[in-house]
Amino acid sequence: MNVPKPILRLIESFESLPGIGPKTAQRLTFYLLHFPQEQLQKFADSLADLKKNINLCDTCKNVTEFSICELCSDASRDHTTIAVVANPLDVFALEKTGYKGVYHVLHGVIDPLNNIGPEEIFVNDLKLRVKSMIDEGKNLEIIMATNSSMEGESTALYITKMLRDAGFNDQVLRISRIARGLPVGSDIEFADDITLSRAMEGRSNYTS
Amino acid sequence: MNVPKPILRLIESFESLPGIGPKTAQRLTFYLLHFPQEQLQKFADSLADLKKNINLCDTCKNVTEFSICELCSDASRDHTTIAVVANPLDVFALEKTGYKGVYHVLHGVIDPLNNIGPEEIFVNDLKLRVKSMIDEGKNLEIIMATNSSMEGESTALYITKMLRDAGFNDQVLRISRIARGLPVGSDIEFADDITLSRAMEGRSNYTS
Repeated sequence: MNVPKPILRLIESFESLPGIGPKTAQRLTFYLLHFPQEQLQKFADSLADLKKNINLCDTCKNVTEFSICELCSDASRDHTTIAVVANPLDVFALEKTGYKGVYHVLHGVIDPLNNIGPEEIFVNDLKLRVKSMIDEGKNLEIIMATNSSMEGESTALYITKMLRDAGFNDQVLRISRIARGLPVGSDIEFADDITLSRAMEGRSNYTS
Repeated sequence: MNVPKPILRLIESFESLPGIGPKTAQRLTFYLLHFPQEQLQKFADSLADLKKNINLCDTCKNVTEFSICELCSDASRDHTTIAVVANPLDVFALEKTGYKGVYHVLHGVIDPLNNIGPEEIFVNDLKLRVKSMIDEGKNLEIIMATNSSMEGESTALYITKMLRDAGFNDQVLRISRIARGLPVGSDIEFADDITLSRAMEGRSNYTS
Protein backbone atom coordinates (compact mmCIF):
# COMPACT_ATOMS: atom_id res chain seq x y z
CA MET A 1 0.00 0.00 0.00
CA ASN A 2 1.31 3.43 -0.95
CA VAL A 3 1.14 6.02 1.78
CA PRO A 4 0.39 9.50 0.34
CA LYS A 5 3.62 11.42 -0.29
CA PRO A 6 2.90 14.44 1.95
CA ILE A 7 2.44 12.03 4.85
CA LEU A 8 5.63 10.12 4.03
CA ARG A 9 7.61 13.35 3.83
CA LEU A 10 6.48 14.50 7.27
CA ILE A 11 7.13 11.07 8.79
CA GLU A 12 10.68 11.24 7.40
CA SER A 13 11.18 14.73 8.83
CA PHE A 14 10.08 13.60 12.27
CA GLU A 15 12.35 10.56 12.08
CA SER A 16 15.35 12.85 11.70
CA LEU A 17 14.79 14.08 15.27
CA PRO A 18 16.57 12.40 18.19
CA GLY A 19 14.53 9.88 20.18
CA ILE A 20 11.76 9.72 17.56
CA GLY A 21 11.53 6.36 15.81
CA PRO A 22 9.34 5.27 12.89
CA LYS A 23 6.30 4.43 15.06
CA THR A 24 6.34 7.74 16.94
CA ALA A 25 6.90 9.64 13.69
CA GLN A 26 3.83 7.94 12.19
CA ARG A 27 1.74 8.65 15.27
CA LEU A 28 2.71 12.35 15.34
CA THR A 29 2.06 12.75 11.62
CA PHE A 30 -1.41 11.22 11.75
CA TYR A 31 -2.18 13.27 14.82
CA LEU A 32 -1.25 16.43 12.91
CA LEU A 33 -3.70 15.47 10.13
CA HIS A 34 -6.43 16.47 12.57
CA PHE A 35 -4.88 19.91 13.22
CA PRO A 36 -6.54 22.91 11.55
CA GLN A 37 -4.40 24.21 8.65
CA GLU A 38 -3.88 27.46 10.53
CA GLN A 39 -2.18 25.70 13.42
CA LEU A 40 -0.07 23.57 11.06
CA GLN A 41 1.07 26.75 9.33
CA LYS A 42 1.98 28.30 12.69
CA PHE A 43 4.05 25.22 13.56
CA ALA A 44 5.71 25.36 10.12
CA ASP A 45 6.49 29.06 10.51
CA SER A 46 8.03 28.55 13.92
CA LEU A 47 10.30 25.88 12.40
CA ALA A 48 11.28 27.95 9.37
CA ASP A 49 11.90 31.07 11.46
CA LEU A 50 13.70 29.29 14.29
CA LYS A 51 17.15 30.47 13.33
CA LYS A 52 16.18 33.68 11.53
CA ASN A 53 16.25 35.97 14.56
CA ILE A 54 18.67 33.98 16.64
CA ASN A 55 22.36 34.71 17.03
CA LEU A 56 25.03 33.32 19.25
CA CYS A 57 26.11 35.88 21.82
CA ASP A 58 29.47 37.43 20.81
CA THR A 59 30.80 36.86 24.30
CA CYS A 60 29.38 33.64 25.68
CA LYS A 61 27.95 31.92 22.53
CA ASN A 62 24.56 31.40 24.19
CA VAL A 63 21.52 31.72 21.92
CA THR A 64 20.04 35.21 21.92
CA GLU A 65 18.02 37.63 19.81
CA PHE A 66 20.70 40.32 20.24
CA SER A 67 24.43 40.48 19.51
CA ILE A 68 25.26 40.32 23.23
CA CYS A 69 22.94 38.15 25.33
CA GLU A 70 20.93 39.45 28.29
CA LEU A 71 23.14 37.63 30.77
CA CYS A 72 26.38 39.05 29.38
CA SER A 73 24.96 42.58 29.23
CA ASP A 74 23.65 42.43 32.82
CA ALA A 75 26.01 44.59 34.86
CA SER A 76 24.72 43.16 38.17
CA ARG A 77 26.23 39.73 37.43
CA ASP A 78 29.76 38.67 38.29
CA HIS A 79 31.59 38.70 34.96
CA THR A 80 34.76 37.23 36.42
CA THR A 81 33.09 33.88 37.17
CA ILE A 82 32.46 31.89 34.02
CA ALA A 83 30.60 28.56 34.03
CA VAL A 84 31.58 26.48 31.00
CA VAL A 85 28.57 24.43 29.82
CA ALA A 86 27.96 22.18 26.83
CA ASN A 87 24.52 23.43 25.75
CA PRO A 88 22.09 26.34 26.13
CA LEU A 89 19.78 24.00 28.08
CA ASP A 90 22.47 23.71 30.76
CA VAL A 91 22.32 27.49 31.16
CA PHE A 92 18.60 27.24 31.97
CA ALA A 93 19.32 24.55 34.54
CA LEU A 94 22.09 26.53 36.24
CA GLU A 95 20.03 29.73 36.21
CA LYS A 96 17.49 27.96 38.43
CA THR A 97 20.18 27.43 41.09
CA GLY A 98 20.57 31.20 41.58
CA TYR A 99 24.07 31.29 40.05
CA LYS A 100 25.04 34.93 39.46
CA GLY A 101 28.13 34.59 37.29
CA VAL A 102 28.22 34.35 33.50
CA TYR A 103 28.53 31.43 31.09
CA HIS A 104 30.44 30.08 28.17
CA VAL A 105 28.42 27.75 25.97
CA LEU A 106 30.55 25.23 24.06
CA HIS A 107 27.70 23.89 21.89
CA GLY A 108 28.84 20.31 22.31
CA VAL A 109 31.55 18.29 24.01
CA ILE A 110 34.68 16.72 22.63
CA ASP A 111 33.57 13.32 21.36
CA PRO A 112 36.10 11.61 19.06
CA LEU A 113 33.78 8.66 18.39
CA ASN A 114 31.35 11.07 16.72
CA ASN A 115 34.09 13.10 15.02
CA ILE A 116 33.69 16.09 17.31
CA GLY A 117 37.06 17.55 18.14
CA PRO A 118 37.98 20.79 19.95
CA GLU A 119 37.69 22.76 16.67
CA GLU A 120 33.99 21.84 16.34
CA ILE A 121 33.04 23.48 19.65
CA PHE A 122 33.76 26.92 21.08
CA VAL A 123 36.85 26.12 23.15
CA ASN A 124 39.18 28.48 21.31
CA ASP A 125 36.73 31.33 21.85
CA LEU A 126 36.92 30.56 25.56
CA LYS A 127 40.71 30.85 25.50
CA LEU A 128 40.53 34.21 23.70
CA ARG A 129 37.87 35.43 26.13
CA VAL A 130 39.93 34.40 29.17
CA LYS A 131 43.07 35.92 27.65
CA SER A 132 41.47 39.28 26.95
CA MET A 133 40.03 39.48 30.47
CA ILE A 134 43.33 38.55 32.11
CA ASP A 135 45.11 41.08 29.87
CA GLU A 136 42.73 43.65 31.35
CA GLY A 137 44.15 42.73 34.76
CA LYS A 138 41.18 40.71 36.03
CA ASN A 139 41.32 37.56 38.13
CA LEU A 140 38.94 34.86 36.91
CA GLU A 141 37.26 31.69 38.03
CA ILE A 142 36.28 29.14 35.41
CA ILE A 143 33.74 26.56 36.64
CA MET A 144 33.74 23.43 34.51
CA ALA A 145 30.02 22.64 34.44
CA THR A 146 30.01 19.92 31.78
CA ASN A 147 28.17 16.64 32.30
CA SER A 148 29.61 13.99 34.54
CA SER A 149 29.88 11.62 31.53
CA MET A 150 33.08 10.41 29.90
CA GLU A 151 32.82 13.09 27.20
CA GLY A 152 31.97 15.78 29.72
CA GLU A 153 34.92 14.85 31.93
CA SER A 154 37.40 14.72 29.06
CA THR A 155 36.18 18.05 27.72
CA ALA A 156 36.70 19.59 31.16
CA LEU A 157 40.19 18.06 31.33
CA TYR A 158 41.06 19.25 27.81
CA ILE A 159 39.99 22.83 28.53
CA THR A 160 41.83 22.90 31.85
CA LYS A 161 45.04 21.71 30.18
CA MET A 162 44.58 24.18 27.32
CA LEU A 163 44.19 27.13 29.70
CA ARG A 164 47.14 26.11 31.89
CA ASP A 165 49.30 25.51 28.79
CA ALA A 166 48.40 29.01 27.62
CA GLY A 167 50.21 30.29 30.71
CA PHE A 168 47.25 31.25 32.90
CA ASN A 169 48.36 30.15 36.36
CA ASP A 170 46.57 29.75 39.66
CA GLN A 171 47.23 33.37 40.59
CA VAL A 172 45.07 34.82 37.82
CA LEU A 173 42.80 31.91 36.97
CA ARG A 174 41.06 29.55 39.35
CA ILE A 175 39.66 26.50 37.58
CA SER A 176 37.02 24.50 39.44
CA ARG A 177 34.79 21.55 38.62
CA ILE A 178 31.21 21.12 39.85
CA ALA A 179 31.00 18.45 42.55
CA ARG A 180 30.29 14.84 41.69
CA GLY A 181 28.56 13.01 44.54
CA LEU A 182 25.29 11.58 45.80
CA PRO A 183 22.23 13.23 44.27
CA VAL A 184 20.07 14.80 47.00
CA GLY A 185 17.55 12.29 48.33
CA SER A 186 19.45 9.21 47.14
CA ASP A 187 20.69 6.21 49.11
CA ILE A 188 24.35 5.32 49.66
CA GLU A 189 23.31 1.67 49.44
CA PHE A 190 22.24 2.00 45.81
CA ALA A 191 24.88 4.48 44.61
CA ASP A 192 27.33 3.15 42.02
CA ASP A 193 31.00 2.74 43.00
CA ILE A 194 32.35 5.65 40.98
CA THR A 195 29.75 8.12 42.23
CA LEU A 196 30.40 7.03 45.81
CA SER A 197 34.17 7.29 45.50
CA ARG A 198 33.75 10.77 43.95
CA ALA A 199 31.50 11.67 46.86
CA MET A 200 34.19 10.53 49.31
CA GLU A 201 36.96 12.40 47.48
CA GLY A 202 34.87 15.56 47.30
CA ARG A 203 33.88 15.57 50.98
CA SER A 204 33.80 18.97 52.62
CA ASN A 205 34.07 20.22 56.17
CA TYR A 206 30.85 19.79 58.04
CA THR A 207 29.60 22.48 60.37
CA SER A 208 26.44 22.13 62.33
CA MET B 1 16.44 34.51 32.00
CA ASN B 2 14.45 35.20 28.85
CA VAL B 3 14.59 32.49 26.23
CA PRO B 4 14.61 33.97 22.69
CA LYS B 5 11.07 34.13 21.27
CA PRO B 6 11.64 31.98 18.18
CA ILE B 7 12.84 29.19 20.47
CA LEU B 8 9.87 29.59 22.84
CA ARG B 9 7.45 29.47 19.91
CA LEU B 10 8.86 26.22 18.59
CA ILE B 11 8.93 24.67 22.08
CA GLU B 12 5.22 25.54 22.43
CA SER B 13 4.44 24.01 19.04
CA PHE B 14 6.16 20.76 19.96
CA GLU B 15 4.37 20.67 23.31
CA SER B 16 1.04 20.59 21.48
CA LEU B 17 1.92 17.11 20.16
CA PRO B 18 0.83 14.00 22.07
CA GLY B 19 3.47 12.37 24.26
CA ILE B 20 5.84 15.34 24.03
CA GLY B 21 6.29 17.15 27.32
CA PRO B 22 8.17 20.38 28.10
CA LYS B 23 11.58 18.69 28.48
CA THR B 24 11.35 16.77 25.21
CA ALA B 25 10.06 19.87 23.42
CA GLN B 26 13.10 21.82 24.66
CA ARG B 27 15.47 19.05 23.65
CA LEU B 28 14.00 18.78 20.12
CA THR B 29 14.06 22.56 19.66
CA PHE B 30 17.69 22.93 20.68
CA TYR B 31 18.60 19.97 18.51
CA LEU B 32 16.96 21.70 15.53
CA LEU B 33 19.08 24.80 16.15
CA HIS B 34 21.97 22.76 14.74
CA PHE B 35 20.07 21.86 11.55
CA PRO B 36 21.00 23.69 8.37
CA GLN B 37 18.32 26.26 7.42
CA GLU B 38 17.62 24.29 4.24
CA GLN B 39 16.62 21.20 6.23
CA LEU B 40 14.52 23.27 8.65
CA GLN B 41 12.71 24.78 5.67
CA LYS B 42 12.07 21.31 4.26
CA PHE B 43 10.60 20.18 7.59
CA ALA B 44 8.48 23.36 7.72
CA ASP B 45 7.23 22.81 4.17
CA SER B 46 6.27 19.23 4.87
CA LEU B 47 4.22 20.44 7.84
CA ALA B 48 2.53 23.27 5.95
CA ASP B 49 1.79 21.06 2.94
CA LEU B 50 0.69 18.04 4.94
CA LYS B 51 -2.99 18.47 4.25
CA LYS B 52 -2.75 20.34 0.94
CA ASN B 53 -2.68 17.31 -1.33
CA ILE B 54 -4.46 14.91 0.95
CA ASN B 55 -8.11 13.96 0.70
CA LEU B 56 -10.20 11.39 2.41
CA CYS B 57 -11.23 8.64 -0.01
CA ASP B 58 -14.87 9.11 -1.11
CA THR B 59 -15.57 5.46 -0.39
CA CYS B 60 -13.52 4.36 2.62
CA LYS B 61 -12.39 7.72 4.13
CA ASN B 62 -8.76 6.60 4.21
CA VAL B 63 -6.16 9.30 3.51
CA THR B 64 -5.17 9.47 -0.15
CA GLU B 65 -3.85 11.81 -2.80
CA PHE B 66 -6.76 10.95 -5.10
CA SER B 67 -10.54 11.11 -4.78
CA ILE B 68 -10.75 7.31 -4.53
CA CYS B 69 -7.87 5.61 -2.71
CA GLU B 70 -5.65 2.97 -4.29
CA LEU B 71 -7.19 0.20 -2.23
CA CYS B 72 -10.77 1.06 -3.19
CA SER B 73 -9.86 1.37 -6.87
CA ASP B 74 -8.02 -1.96 -6.90
CA ALA B 75 -10.32 -4.40 -8.74
CA SER B 76 -8.36 -7.43 -7.52
CA ARG B 77 -9.50 -6.88 -3.94
CA ASP B 78 -12.67 -8.25 -2.40
CA HIS B 79 -14.98 -5.25 -2.17
CA THR B 80 -17.67 -7.14 -0.29
CA THR B 81 -15.48 -7.58 2.80
CA ILE B 82 -15.07 -4.33 4.70
CA ALA B 83 -12.81 -4.01 7.74
CA VAL B 84 -13.93 -1.13 9.96
CA VAL B 85 -10.91 0.52 11.61
CA ALA B 86 -10.47 3.59 13.76
CA ASN B 87 -7.41 5.16 12.09
CA PRO B 88 -5.36 5.11 8.86
CA LEU B 89 -2.49 3.57 10.86
CA ASP B 90 -4.68 0.53 11.50
CA VAL B 91 -4.98 0.09 7.73
CA PHE B 92 -1.18 -0.16 7.47
CA ALA B 93 -1.14 -2.76 10.22
CA LEU B 94 -3.86 -4.88 8.62
CA GLU B 95 -2.27 -4.60 5.16
CA LYS B 96 0.78 -6.38 6.57
CA THR B 97 -1.36 -9.40 7.43
CA GLY B 98 -2.18 -9.99 3.74
CA TYR B 99 -5.86 -9.01 4.15
CA LYS B 100 -7.38 -8.64 0.68
CA GLY B 101 -10.70 -6.95 1.44
CA VAL B 102 -11.32 -3.22 1.70
CA TYR B 103 -11.59 -0.83 4.64
CA HIS B 104 -13.73 1.79 6.26
CA VAL B 105 -11.77 4.31 8.31
CA LEU B 106 -13.82 5.89 11.11
CA HIS B 107 -11.17 8.48 12.07
CA GLY B 108 -11.77 7.95 15.75
CA VAL B 109 -13.88 5.92 18.12
CA ILE B 110 -16.95 6.83 20.11
CA ASP B 111 -15.62 8.29 23.33
CA PRO B 112 -18.21 10.22 25.35
CA LEU B 113 -15.66 11.28 27.98
CA ASN B 114 -13.85 13.25 25.29
CA ASN B 115 -17.05 14.50 23.64
CA ILE B 116 -16.72 12.25 20.62
CA GLY B 117 -20.10 10.90 19.59
CA PRO B 118 -21.13 8.92 16.49
CA GLU B 119 -21.59 12.20 14.53
CA GLU B 120 -17.90 13.08 14.95
CA ILE B 121 -16.70 9.92 13.20
CA PHE B 122 -17.64 8.34 9.87
CA VAL B 123 -20.26 5.85 11.06
CA ASN B 124 -23.12 7.30 9.03
CA ASP B 125 -21.02 7.08 5.87
CA LEU B 126 -20.55 3.39 6.65
CA LYS B 127 -24.31 2.88 6.87
CA LEU B 128 -24.86 4.62 3.51
CA ARG B 129 -22.04 2.59 1.95
CA VAL B 130 -23.46 -0.70 3.22
CA LYS B 131 -26.98 0.29 2.16
CA SER B 132 -25.96 1.18 -1.41
CA MET B 133 -24.04 -2.09 -1.80
CA ILE B 134 -26.89 -4.20 -0.45
CA ASP B 135 -29.30 -2.29 -2.70
CA GLU B 136 -27.08 -3.44 -5.59
CA GLY B 137 -27.82 -6.98 -4.48
CA LYS B 138 -24.47 -7.78 -2.88
CA ASN B 139 -23.88 -9.84 0.25
CA LEU B 140 -21.39 -8.22 2.60
CA GLU B 141 -19.13 -9.02 5.52
CA ILE B 142 -18.23 -6.24 7.93
CA ILE B 143 -15.23 -7.02 10.15
CA MET B 144 -15.14 -4.88 13.26
CA ALA B 145 -11.40 -4.23 13.57
CA THR B 146 -11.43 -1.56 16.24
CA ASN B 147 -9.13 -1.74 19.25
CA SER B 148 -9.84 -4.13 22.05
CA SER B 149 -10.24 -1.17 24.45
CA MET B 150 -13.45 -0.03 26.09
CA GLU B 151 -13.97 2.66 23.42
CA GLY B 152 -13.11 0.23 20.61
CA GLU B 153 -15.54 -2.38 21.93
CA SER B 154 -18.39 0.08 22.40
CA THR B 155 -17.84 1.54 18.95
CA ALA B 156 -18.05 -1.96 17.47
CA LEU B 157 -21.24 -2.62 19.45
CA TYR B 158 -22.76 0.70 18.40
CA ILE B 159 -22.09 0.10 14.70
CA THR B 160 -23.39 -3.47 14.86
CA LYS B 161 -26.62 -2.29 16.49
CA MET B 162 -26.94 0.57 13.98
CA LEU B 163 -26.60 -1.78 10.99
CA ARG B 164 -29.01 -4.36 12.40
CA ASP B 165 -31.52 -1.60 13.29
CA ALA B 166 -31.28 -0.38 9.70
CA GLY B 167 -32.74 -3.72 8.69
CA PHE B 168 -29.66 -5.47 7.29
CA ASN B 169 -30.08 -9.02 8.53
CA ASP B 170 -27.76 -12.02 8.67
CA GLN B 171 -28.75 -13.09 5.16
CA VAL B 172 -27.25 -10.04 3.45
CA LEU B 173 -24.76 -8.83 6.05
CA ARG B 174 -22.40 -10.89 8.16
CA ILE B 175 -20.88 -8.87 11.00
CA SER B 176 -17.74 -10.26 12.63
CA ARG B 177 -15.30 -9.07 15.25
CA ILE B 178 -11.53 -9.74 15.19
CA ALA B 179 -10.59 -12.35 17.81
CA ARG B 180 -9.52 -11.35 21.27
CA GLY B 181 -7.18 -13.90 22.83
CA LEU B 182 -3.58 -14.65 23.78
CA PRO B 183 -1.02 -12.68 21.73
CA VAL B 184 1.29 -15.09 19.89
CA GLY B 185 4.31 -15.97 22.03
CA SER B 186 2.68 -15.06 25.35
CA ASP B 187 2.15 -17.13 28.49
CA ILE B 188 -1.23 -18.21 29.84
CA GLU B 189 0.23 -17.76 33.32
CA PHE B 190 0.70 -14.04 32.85
CA ALA B 191 -2.41 -13.28 30.77
CA ASP B 192 -5.01 -11.07 32.41
CA ASP B 193 -8.40 -12.57 33.32
CA ILE B 194 -10.42 -10.82 30.63
CA THR B 195 -8.04 -11.72 27.82
CA LEU B 196 -7.97 -15.33 28.97
CA SER B 197 -11.74 -15.60 29.21
CA ARG B 198 -12.05 -14.05 25.72
CA ALA B 199 -9.51 -16.61 24.50
CA MET B 200 -11.63 -19.43 25.98
CA GLU B 201 -14.88 -18.07 24.53
CA GLY B 202 -13.28 -17.63 21.12
CA ARG B 203 -11.76 -21.12 20.94
CA SER B 204 -11.86 -22.81 17.56
CA ASN B 205 -11.74 -26.40 16.34
CA TYR B 206 -8.24 -27.76 16.34
CA THR B 207 -7.01 -29.92 13.49
CA SER B 208 -3.55 -31.34 13.42
